[in-house]
Amino acid sequence: MANSKYEYVKKFEDDDRLPPCNWIVVRIDGCHFHRFSADHEFEKPNDKNALNLMNSCAVSMLEHFPDIVFAYGVSDEYSFVLKETTQFYQRRASKILSLSVSYFTSLYVMKWKEFFPDKELKAPPSFDGRVICFPKAKIIQDYLAWRQVDCHINNQYNTCFWNLVNSGKTEREAQEFLKGTQSKDKNELLFQQFGINYNDLPAMFRKGSCVYRDKVEETAKLDKGGNSIKRTRNKVVLAHIDIIGPKFWSEHQYILEEE
Amino acid sequence: MANSKYEYVKKFEDDDRLPPCNWIVVRIDGCHFHRFSADHEFEKPNDKNALNLMNSCAVSMLEHFPDIVFAYGVSDEYSFVLKETTQFYQRRASKILSLSVSYFTSLYVMKWKEFFPDKELKAPPSFDGRVICFPKAKIIQDYLAWRQVDCHINNQYNTCFWNLVNSGKTEREAQEFLKGTQSKDKNELLFQQFGINYNDLPAMFRKGSCVYRDKVEETAKLDKGGNSIKRTRNKVVLAHIDIIGPKFWSEHQYILEEE
Amino acid sequence: MANSKYEYVKKFEDDDRLPPCNWIVVRIDGCHFHRFSADHEFEKPNDKNALNLMNSCAVSMLEHFPDIVFAYGVSDEYSFVLKETTQFYQRRASKILSLSVSYFTSLYVMKWKEFFPDKELKAPPSFDGRVICFPKAKIIQDYLAWRQVDCHINNQYNTCFWNLVNSGKTEREAQEFLKGTQSKDKNELLFQQFGINYNDLPAMFRKGSCVYRDKVEETAKLDKGGNSIKRTRNKVVLAHIDIIGPKFWSEHQYILEEE
Amino acid sequence: MANSKYEYVKKFEDDDRLPPCNWIVVRIDGCHFHRFSADHEFEKPNDKNALNLMNSCAVSMLEHFPDIVFAYGVSDEYSFVLKETTQFYQRRASKILSLSVSYFTSLYVMKWKEFFPDKELKAPPSFDGRVICFPKAKIIQDYLAWRQVDCHINNQYNTCFWNLVNSGKTEREAQEFLKGTQSKDKNELLFQQFGINYNDLPAMFRKGSCVYRDKVEETAKLDKGGNSIKRTRNKVVLAHIDIIGPKFWSEHQYILEEE
Repeated sequence: MANSKYEYVKKFEDDDRLPPCNWIVVRIDGCHFHRFSADHEFEKPNDKNALNLMNSCAVSMLEHFPDIVFAYGVSDEYSFVLKETTQFYQRRASKILSLSVSYFTSLYVMKWKEFFPDKELKAPPSFDGRVICFPKAKIIQDYLAWRQVDCHINNQYNTCFWNLVNSGKTEREAQEFLKGTQSKDKNELLFQQFGINYNDLPAMFRKGSCVYRDKVEETAKLDKGGNSIKRTRNKVVLAHIDIIGPKFWSEHQYILEEE
Repeated sequence: MANSKYEYVKKFEDDDRLPPCNWIVVRIDGCHFHRFSADHEFEKPNDKNALNLMNSCAVSMLEHFPDIVFAYGVSDEYSFVLKETTQFYQRRASKILSLSVSYFTSLYVMKWKEFFPDKELKAPPSFDGRVICFPKAKIIQDYLAWRQVDCHINNQYNTCFWNLVNSGKTEREAQEFLKGTQSKDKNELLFQQFGINYNDLPAMFRKGSCVYRDKVEETAKLDKGGNSIKRTRNKVVLAHIDIIGPKFWSEHQYILEEE
Repeated sequence: MANSKYEYVKKFEDDDRLPPCNWIVVRIDGCHFHRFSADHEFEKPNDKNALNLMNSCAVSMLEHFPDIVFAYGVSDEYSFVLKETTQFYQRRASKILSLSVSYFTSLYVMKWKEFFPDKELKAPPSFDGRVICFPKAKIIQDYLAWRQVDCHINNQYNTCFWNLVNSGKTEREAQEFLKGTQSKDKNELLFQQFGINYNDLPAMFRKGSCVYRDKVEETAKLDKGGNSIKRTRNKVVLAHIDIIGPKFWSEHQYILEEE
Repeated sequence: MANSKYEYVKKFEDDDRLPPCNWIVVRIDGCHFHRFSADHEFEKPNDKNALNLMNSCAVSMLEHFPDIVFAYGVSDEYSFVLKETTQFYQRRASKILSLSVSYFTSLYVMKWKEFFPDKELKAPPSFDGRVICFPKAKIIQDYLAWRQVDCHINNQYNTCFWNLVNSGKTEREAQEFLKGTQSKDKNELLFQQFGINYNDLPAMFRKGSCVYRDKVEETAKLDKGGNSIKRTRNKVVLAHIDIIGPKFWSEHQYILEEE
């Protein structure tokens, strides 16, 4: 039973290779996570365990996919940057997108118990994703800055919002109260009313999470004479740091090096 | 801290809406499942539990996504047909692809224990996927026939191959032995040498698996007089049947009904 | 001097083949023809010579490109329908678009003198174009109906507008006057104020122009006995007829016949 | 007669905007120019008038479209480079492609008489085209180098080929004769057999044609005292020069300046 009669249907598949010499970003985003986080009683405005779970998955992504050079995460969202010259699946958009999202999802479910030992998964978590091409390293930096500014704006708002709600306001009242306030007003509110110095909040909440490879010095083992030997190794690291200013990028030029 | 300075990066996202009035197929495929099935000691040529797990995930897909009208699975592959007029995520290819693959992966990991109670997942299973548009119902039928013919060809070959290997041949010898054989030769080989009547093998192995909605008659409950009341309900069903010939489609015209 | 060092740039060319089993429409449109028609003193609201020139080019298009099965034109716009199964340039969108627009433009300039013997071309006329895929013949009919309804709406409006302007109103006054009027009102206006029965206007103005192949009976030549021999021939014809209703299409089913 | 019933067909038009921050090249190519040049008895291997006509059209293109920053032409082919940040028709591929090809074709037909006063156009000349995005200025230079190397290879071959044919060989014999010859062999052949020093051939044949804007010093007019006033003006110029090496680009950095 040859299959030639039906093989014409393969012609409907299109060639979706992304253009060469472009950085590729895969951004994934929790699907209906508003509800998912309510169902699983995530703490508001930030649930440390949930963020640690996301970060752990991101670290595993970089360990698994060598062409991912940087990742930035905030809330239920993560952006993965593939190097400009990657030939991963011949740069086919569908392959890159589906495999990234699928592998991340798989990790998320498998690692759940590690971060929520006392909570059962009540429904299958899922993520949507998209693939974006950026022609220059400078634009990748701007993209990541865009996500980190977003992190800041949302976190500041949410911190105010949930403190107001926890102090007795309804969600609608809290929303009304914050309408039109500036960044400075919100900091003032947190300090005056709740005794919170915004800058003392955990960096993971304020800055989001960066995952990348860095040279790390390790004590490897003892030599014959019993002395410890140090060596540097390229390791995937997690950091909650500023990536809007030039400092990080000038100290880690190898990450977005152009060919 | 307004975000306007960096928002220009959003312009790099492209509009990937699929054309209207086309059936959409999402086909997902296990990634490196050759190795995954070896690591988890799947039976060869077909592991019932592994197939039942795939099918269970597919049934959950149809229960979760109302716009999937049909699914066909074989081995570690599943095709999901979305109805011609679906407005799911405005028909955006990335959303449809990533969500389908992600939700399926999530189900696969969550249901693993149910089908493999004695096996731990040793590595995160993942699936790649692609999205294909088909302009006519007839072509969708041909697409599905293409997959089912493929199922037949592969299963017949694999059944011969693994019986030869299990009877003492090396994998290379088995491969050599089967080179150039026709369908009829393979049936003959199975019958003569291994006493297997190919058509007696489980339909799930020979035909693959179809998932769709069908009217099912249920005994709902007893009425006041103690008589059982029957009602018909639209239910997601699983069947291992021929979808190459016209019979199935003429009996289930509602599945691929064109507007 | 081998060229291999630079050949990598070919990888930036993308594969733009249109999906199979779709009708392809190339719609071209005069670029800045508002100004072009003013520069060349086209009559308002319709210039017969300019329309005849467009139509002559369209007829030549069908004579040159056998895969164009139908064309519909109105004002400085023309839509060309390529048959569902065309393999013209492997269905590559850029090739189909650029060649259609280029050949049409070439014809337009070369035929200009034939239709405007007393007018010099003052500037290079140019056309933009786009390519659209339609998965079903019924949708092609709707597309063409859409263009013909547009022709009607525009022509009725323009006929009123230019009669008002020619009778002394400024363009702004004419515009104001027509604001909010219905189709019926406009017919009434034309009849009452200008003695024009809209339906008596030339069909080319009211219906636009259709170009297609039809069987035409021709007197071929005389036989030996001096009797004329009739034969039917497939010929490109031009007609100004209704294509919104079903009549034309049921009488010319071969034009949009699906495979 | 409202048009809403059919307007759904507009949904089949897709959004084809090219990605931002990419240089855009439109390359056009004569369609069936082998036959066209035979029909119009172009001189072989190079017809000066035909090349001058192409170049004249290219100069008019740059005068008409301010966003074209450079053009390179060889034989019946021309590449037009639009600046990285062009917003021409919102970077829609179809618009950019169709208008460029259409305007060029229009110029070609209108200018024909100027370059071939004694030849009638026997058939409508037409050009196909494609649009390509390049993410970096360096790659645009490589693209143009690719075209100029091609020009050299083809011209050297064609010069040998036609000299052999004109000296009595058949086309097939000439082809056989040149098979496997290197660049050096061909130069030797030209010199030994035909007394041609390849480097003495017109630069337009060997280098192709570049069109770009340059500062040109002009004698504008006389002042009151009768002295001529010089001024520099940005003008579209034509040159037959090397663009493979770095010299041209370092002297004209403004042409491919990145933002």
